[in-house]
Amino acid sequence: MSKLKNIKETLLMGPGPSCVPPQVYEALATATIGHLDPAFIGIMDEIKAMLKQVFQTENDMTIPMSGTGSAGMETCFVNLVEPGDKLLVLINGVFGMRMQDVATRLGADVDTLEFEWGTAVDTNKVKMKLDGAAYDIVAVVHAETSTGVCNPVDRIGAIVKDMGALFLVDTVTSLGGIPVKIDEWGIDAVYSGTQKCLSCPPGLSPVSFSQKAVDKLMNRKMKVPSWYLDLSMIVNYWQGAKRAYHHTAPINMLYALYAALKCVLEEGMDNVFARHQAAHEQLKAGLAELEISFLVEEENRLPMLNAVKIPEGVNEADIRMGLLKQHQIEIGAGLGPLAGKIWRIGLMGHTARTENVKQLLTALKAQLGH
Amino acid sequence: MSKLKNIKETLLMGPGPSCVPPQVYEALATATIGHLDPAFIGIMDEIKAMLKQVFQTENDMTIPMSGTGSAGMETCFVNLVEPGDKLLVLINGVFGMRMQDVATRLGADVDTLEFEWGTAVDTNKVKMKLDGAAYDIVAVVHAETSTGVCNPVDRIGAIVKDMGALFLVDTVTSLGGIPVKIDEWGIDAVYSGTQKCLSCPPGLSPVSFSQKAVDKLMNRKMKVPSWYLDLSMIVNYWQGAKRAYHHTAPINMLYALYAALKCVLEEGMDNVFARHQAAHEQLKAGLAELEISFLVEEENRLPMLNAVKIPEGVNEADIRMGLLKQHQIEIGAGLGPLAGKIWRIGLMGHTARTENVKQLLTALKAQLGH
Repeated sequence: MSKLKNIKETLLMGPGPSCVPPQVYEALATATIGHLDPAFIGIMDEIKAMLKQVFQTENDMTIPMSGTGSAGMETCFVNLVEPGDKLLVLINGVFGMRMQDVATRLGADVDTLEFEWGTAVDTNKVKMKLDGAAYDIVAVVHAETSTGVCNPVDRIGAIVKDMGALFLVDTVTSLGGIPVKIDEWGIDAVYSGTQKCLSCPPGLSPVSFSQKAVDKLMNRKMKVPSWYLDLSMIVNYWQGAKRAYHHTAPINMLYALYAALKCVLEEGMDNVFARHQAAHEQLKAGLAELEISFLVEEENRLPMLNAVKIPEGVNEADIRMGLLKQHQIEIGAGLGPLAGKIWRIGLMGHTARTENVKQLLTALKAQLGH
Repeated sequence: MSKLKNIKETLLMGPGPSCVPPQVYEALATATIGHLDPAFIGIMDEIKAMLKQVFQTENDMTIPMSGTGSAGMETCFVNLVEPGDKLLVLINGVFGMRMQDVATRLGADVDTLEFEWGTAVDTNKVKMKLDGAAYDIVAVVHAETSTGVCNPVDRIGAIVKDMGALFLVDTVTSLGGIPVKIDEWGIDAVYSGTQKCLSCPPGLSPVSFSQKAVDKLMNRKMKVPSWYLDLSMIVNYWQGAKRAYHHTAPINMLYALYAALKCVLEEGMDNVFARHQAAHEQLKAGLAELEISFLVEEENRLPMLNAVKIPEGVNEADIRMGLLKQHQIEIGAGLGPLAGKIWRIGLMGHTARTENVKQLLTALKAQLGH
């Protein structure tokens, strides 16, 4: 008996994956064709064009990597870092720490500037840290999924530009939920995921490199240490007249991303952002009634990732399990130092809808015995 | 207008992807749930158990990596190689060369033993090469997808065991089409792909490590240079009572792999192997009528990857395009030094059926003007 028959449609309100719209499921089940079939190349070209729109960039090197969001993180570092390069990673959560770990493994000389989890990166401290320093790369997470904080990437970008370093940004959770402006913000390398505000199942990681980043890649002294993620080769499959085989592309996942990007662009990005914000406001009002408060100050809160404090005397895991088993709703637990202290309520992509927020609030009320 | 509407169901007879059975498409479109949902953990456990069966191994560390076959190759090398380790790579095609490239980028001291493309690895030469040598790892491709050669992994394994090195094998194209016996053959690290004889779309790479390989991994001096592929961390998500988040698993692709493995095991592996062999024999007889000959000597031929010489005076690309456009059949071109010299006809997984071979032969006859 197949265990797949027991899978119940779940309202995904955790830190990702998010709910997937019907068009994307349909795309996933489209007939598999060859990775060099001209019909598939046509789809790849349109994916690239749509990714450039959602990333708000003219970067030619804008493609989805064949791995999940963390593969995108690794792609950015592995292509740009050479042993001994000086990096500054701004850290205020799990994903900033992950950047530090990834870069250190590659032999980079990694410096960090840390901020309390749940607070945003303080640009004054960044300015002081960068004053007179010579970093090759400065890296930061836009939407810190572990805490629900939005970091001021636009302002950090302006500071980094002044000192000449490459600016590397994680937009896994922000892309498709709040504006991400690669070119305007001076971002040189960026990665995202498909399973958050793009509402495509997990498995791909869109990345984009500026010309400055491409130049650094093409002038490396040593080959990129990861063959699988080497953009200098992969790009020959994704652009140009003659497409050179690198690895077999994940055909059906790319169909799904194609459909998911079409959904976002057809709705219109401003409408999508407004829908996320409205769902967040609705959640905020409902949680206030339940006397549940946010971890993050209002001005730095992400609409799509709501980190909320667990009420006193409540067994947080029991509530999460109750929501899942009795209401078929998933919310997320805290990570690292926030484990047991917060829940993470995701309002990402297709999930960010009035009826869903209402459903969660009703279920949560019941679980808490209100 | 969605380009997906123009995708036509194609008879995939190239070097992969292969045709996907309906159950697997259905699995792909199953509702996405969370990567820590107990229902999903149950599916992961069954995937592991089924992979152990198809790999014919008792290895606990047997899991699908979140990337395509080449990510599996990189997984094996990146977890086992430390800078300066001595490697021997046996090369008789593109994928042996890729192994050399991957390992060299990791700082290994890579030695090679090369054989003419289209011929098998000569175990006598391997024995001579290993005599008195001290390699940490010996690596070889089982089914060389670029040439259609089956290498004698069982006999190479016995030689490698005698000298104490780790034995690393690529089974991307062989797994699910011919026997692959990890434990019996003394293989320490193995990777495969999903889009060949398992008939699941591309996007995952099953890997398996022996205890000896796990020991080498756990006693590394330096961290695994790739965070994304670090098995020492990933294993904590795939086994044990408490599943620790590493990266968001590609949920729907794993549903598809689950369904694909179930198909193979329900048909029975011996039946599956016999079906591949029968399709190969039927193709061989049909090609003989067309006076098309094989690149590889009969005793070393793979049933699922048939490298055949392009008849004199034929424009090979025109024939391939004619097959695709007029008959909706894909066959593969030659790679590297074999480009323009051979076609690669895949009979993998769900593709390996009498009616499909007949359809190809009829279409090929028409295209060649017979």
